[in-house]
Amino acid sequence: MARKIILDCDPGHDDAIAMLLAHGNPDIELVAVTTVVGNQTLEKVTRNALSVARIAGITGVPFAAGCPRPLVRPIEIAPDIHGESGLDGPVLPEPTLELDRRHAVDLIIDTVMSHEPGEITIVPTAGLTNIAMAVRKEPRIASRVREVVLMGGGYHEGNWSAVAEFNIKIDPEAAHIVFNESWPVTMVGLDLTHQALATPAVVDKIAAVGTRPAKFVLELLEFFGEMYEQAQGFEFPPVHDPCAVAYVIDPDVMTVRKAPVDIELTGTLTLGMTVADFRAPAPDDCNTQVAVKLDRERFWNLVVDALERIGDVEA
Amino acid sequence: MARKIILDCDPGHDDAIAMLLAHGNPDIELVAVTTVVGNQTLEKVTRNALSVARIAGITGVPFAAGCPRPLVRPIEIAPDIHGESGLDGPVLPEPTLELDRRHAVDLIIDTVMSHEPGEITIVPTAGLTNIAMAVRKEPRIASRVREVVLMGGGYHEGNWSAVAEFNIKIDPEAAHIVFNESWPVTMVGLDLTHQALATPAVVDKIAAVGTRPAKFVLELLEFFGEMYEQAQGFEFPPVHDPCAVAYVIDPDVMTVRKAPVDIELTGTLTLGMTVADFRAPAPDDCNTQVAVKLDRERFWNLVVDALERIGDVEA
Amino acid sequence: MARKIILDCDPGHDDAIAMLLAHGNPDIELVAVTTVVGNQTLEKVTRNALSVARIAGITGVPFAAGCPRPLVRPIEIAPDIHGESGLDGPVLPEPTLELDRRHAVDLIIDTVMSHEPGEITIVPTAGLTNIAMAVRKEPRIASRVREVVLMGGGYHEGNWSAVAEFNIKIDPEAAHIVFNESWPVTMVGLDLTHQALATPAVVDKIAAVGTRPAKFVLELLEFFGEMYEQAQGFEFPPVHDPCAVAYVIDPDVMTVRKAPVDIELTGTLTLGMTVADFRAPAPDDCNTQVAVKLDRERFWNLVVDALERIGDVEA
Amino acid sequence: MARKIILDCDPGHDDAIAMLLAHGNPDIELVAVTTVVGNQTLEKVTRNALSVARIAGITGVPFAAGCPRPLVRPIEIAPDIHGESGLDGPVLPEPTLELDRRHAVDLIIDTVMSHEPGEITIVPTAGLTNIAMAVRKEPRIASRVREVVLMGGGYHEGNWSAVAEFNIKIDPEAAHIVFNESWPVTMVGLDLTHQALATPAVVDKIAAVGTRPAKFVLELLEFFGEMYEQAQGFEFPPVHDPCAVAYVIDPDVMTVRKAPVDIELTGTLTLGMTVADFRAPAPDDCNTQVAVKLDRERFWNLVVDALERIGDVEA
Repeated sequence: MARKIILDCDPGHDDAIAMLLAHGNPDIELVAVTTVVGNQTLEKVTRNALSVARIAGITGVPFAAGCPRPLVRPIEIAPDIHGESGLDGPVLPEPTLELDRRHAVDLIIDTVMSHEPGEITIVPTAGLTNIAMAVRKEPRIASRVREVVLMGGGYHEGNWSAVAEFNIKIDPEAAHIVFNESWPVTMVGLDLTHQALATPAVVDKIAAVGTRPAKFVLELLEFFGEMYEQAQGFEFPPVHDPCAVAYVIDPDVMTVRKAPVDIELTGTLTLGMTVADFRAPAPDDCNTQVAVKLDRERFWNLVVDALERIGDVEA
Repeated sequence: MARKIILDCDPGHDDAIAMLLAHGNPDIELVAVTTVVGNQTLEKVTRNALSVARIAGITGVPFAAGCPRPLVRPIEIAPDIHGESGLDGPVLPEPTLELDRRHAVDLIIDTVMSHEPGEITIVPTAGLTNIAMAVRKEPRIASRVREVVLMGGGYHEGNWSAVAEFNIKIDPEAAHIVFNESWPVTMVGLDLTHQALATPAVVDKIAAVGTRPAKFVLELLEFFGEMYEQAQGFEFPPVHDPCAVAYVIDPDVMTVRKAPVDIELTGTLTLGMTVADFRAPAPDDCNTQVAVKLDRERFWNLVVDALERIGDVEA
Repeated sequence: MARKIILDCDPGHDDAIAMLLAHGNPDIELVAVTTVVGNQTLEKVTRNALSVARIAGITGVPFAAGCPRPLVRPIEIAPDIHGESGLDGPVLPEPTLELDRRHAVDLIIDTVMSHEPGEITIVPTAGLTNIAMAVRKEPRIASRVREVVLMGGGYHEGNWSAVAEFNIKIDPEAAHIVFNESWPVTMVGLDLTHQALATPAVVDKIAAVGTRPAKFVLELLEFFGEMYEQAQGFEFPPVHDPCAVAYVIDPDVMTVRKAPVDIELTGTLTLGMTVADFRAPAPDDCNTQVAVKLDRERFWNLVVDALERIGDVEA
Repeated sequence: MARKIILDCDPGHDDAIAMLLAHGNPDIELVAVTTVVGNQTLEKVTRNALSVARIAGITGVPFAAGCPRPLVRPIEIAPDIHGESGLDGPVLPEPTLELDRRHAVDLIIDTVMSHEPGEITIVPTAGLTNIAMAVRKEPRIASRVREVVLMGGGYHEGNWSAVAEFNIKIDPEAAHIVFNESWPVTMVGLDLTHQALATPAVVDKIAAVGTRPAKFVLELLEFFGEMYEQAQGFEFPPVHDPCAVAYVIDPDVMTVRKAPVDIELTGTLTLGMTVADFRAPAPDDCNTQVAVKLDRERFWNLVVDALERIGDVEA
């Protein structure tokens, strides 16, 4: 049976690819898409999400906009990586889907509470503001969610500071809330996603699909690659967000390690660090694990396969 | 025209008196009562609020329960001040009102958004979790609320640490959110409320009212007074929360001073301190002010007057 | 018998007056003067100290230079209050005294260790870097010093931030060390020194002394007063540092209150705050007290008397 | 020409081996040994240092005791690793050397200032209190010291918290001072020293030396190994401190990487972390580098060689 997920995102180039992967893969059922400020403003990422839905041919799935700013900190966005629109590069079509009238926080709560316990997996690929708000507004979702599989953090890598990653650092209090809840959390962080580079070989495989959505992905990767090279010195861009979706599809796509993880909230140099403790075997009640090693081929095959299944969507 | 207020509270002895004052005073219209974890668990303070409603004869006002825990920190309650029930002392009647089915956060948002801009005043007399959640979920309330008049903090006084007050310290991140929003905030803190002592003269005046609600207040004060003497060495108990309501009724009941106020989130000794800057005249765009000096007689007259107007409610 | 003091200072207009008071008063014996970075660089304040010694006619007292920077933080100086030289206003004479060859830290240690326990009082009127270094290098001085009477901090006042004072904030780690040692500490902070304003009546009394050192003080006060008006909006300048010396001469010049005091090291808004806890009577082993109320007349009489005793020093 | 080093240590099992390596290796000239609180109290580690000197046959080198406590924090020692004496396991001989009468801080300063610039290397294998005090007391040593090669910290490993190492965490302010000075700092941290395990093969090689000092090392390793297994789950004990000495002897014994490193002073989970920034190539003025990979054979050969050269010291 397909795994039901709520994708909470801020598209964002890699978010868009995550959405395509979730939509195209038969083992995932996308039951809701929610947006949150992050790579760009809420307004922009929400519009981007709807445009990507049209490109991917996603219909019948509620999309809802969530929080326009982090819990405590001022807004930080990433135009140096994602451009002014948040999805620079391709020409985006006008959205055809309409937004759900509910707030993302309520859509998340309603979706979780209206399904059986253990049915819904939450996959955040953005700052954790919506998820934190949802579990504080309705604490019962913590025990009903199957697991939270998130892209964010890094136990030995940082990109928004020496030791902190963007999704966590822009709303560290929200991350603190999410990581300290009782649900299982799988952190797919930079340690993993810096292995998911869109190399020329990967680009060739995607190009070979030959559809409009595949072409869209190529345009994303081209822009994203240039930005990552300029801003962070990467030869090929790391495609973070689909890694979290891939783990839900197939846990064997990566190795994970159980370890206590908590979020640093007061550090001067370490604010927003996902502090993992590897000193001893994780205790039995440890509900956090971190992604360590990616099976690159398996991962990119999932992406290509999803694009092939999506096929050539009508514009 | 009466000022419409949402009372966000955690009854709590002084919250109960605040509720009676708001209900009995003709210049206030209580349009919603919301509860939040604080003096005791959410379940207990919510039940207490409904019991007090029955004692006061409050009907036709929606009551809603809100957040059962602070945003980021673990729950801290105050049984050494308010007892195991949160309202120890009097025998409480079974509630007759039913709770609104909405979450307090949504009741706050709905109430503010369904009134004209500038119509609703929010009066929090508890930790600020609900208010922070509401303004993060629906940022437009910040410009529609007339003002936030809150009991909490202290520029020169602390009770939950050397320099921090209970309502702020139990959820400093929520307080940070509320104090940094664009709405006007009046902080009625310990500097003011430690002037609102229930002295024997005050007790005598309340006793002279002679009604069942007045007797209830006397029982509250008796218990509260003993607790404050044991826990904090007060000769007579400070009756904090009605001070905030009194300011809404009659700003002349206290002098206030405009000053920038912000919340300390990382201090080791100062976590949750309401840091007010008095070094220079407040800038023109300063939206925070602090209560400085209470007109004691005027204040207690308001309380006694409210009790007289409420009269002898049917049990 | 005269009280033997080490004056640790960063002249500085008010430090200069403190030096004059200590030198002129018969109940004080100045056994060493040490300098430390603060109002200006170490080089400048050391030169200033030697120039003031000449003006005051101080001879036979070792002067030593100490630390050129705070323990952990970068250097912060106060040219907006004390000018580019650290003692702008008067024309300063060339020093005639030579510096002791020892480091101030060693002069402090040697002085304390070569006197009987309880003989030496340390009077810091600057950042506490030297004193902290001394007690960490030679911990035995903590039990041999009679007391530390320092100008710095403020329990309800700040000048270098909303809640922190310059001498403490420029080296909060040093202050943390000094306040947490076992010696008695009297904090003469802004709460007290903002009562020591050089009003026109005070200026007149000093003018009436009619000596060269008195004229020097007038020139200091003139410059200092203008700076304080510009920088902090004071009508008359607060003359901080002599207050600490005055307390050593005559404890009745001010009322003090015993209270635990500690230094905030991690606060975002409160870094360097001297956090005093007034919630309960100070415990028996409390070794810190804070100055509360100044007997203004008594204080200024001490200053005028010292100037009269110093008389008309040969230039 | 032999490299002149000051060894600042807190013996400590691995400190003792570091001392033997420094004494036995012909490319090192031990010009001073200073002690500081750390693995045990100052008194104990100082006595241990003198006992080890006798075992190793060290004469003509000044030994001085330094700071008995960290700059700001309370004392933390490590009896679970080093036992009650700080050097449990072997029977220690009575010291024959006498301590230098100077404070370690002054011995460090005198040694550096009396040699040519660039002649002296400081090798701290303990908390950095002495070194921090020395450079604050005499800032000129920063430009005269050739380099600081220290055992401490870890960019991806912790042992005294999830992300902090003992030597840094027990005095993070001192570490902050040392890492932010202008001298070159090589951090030989846990990332490196966890590669220096005393495996059975290593133990056999040392046993083959057959001298009294070698037997002493074996007894150290036996006790140390048991403690590390119990306290931190290591199969074989990491022999940290000699790694720093080995780097001075032969930089090819390990690979190092230039990177900015700073010390976290305010983190709740990360206090005392050595935060290294690997996101971009180190800037040209970067004066810190971290040890990455150990050439195990080369390292242990140095240790064995030193023991062989020391030979069978008279007891």
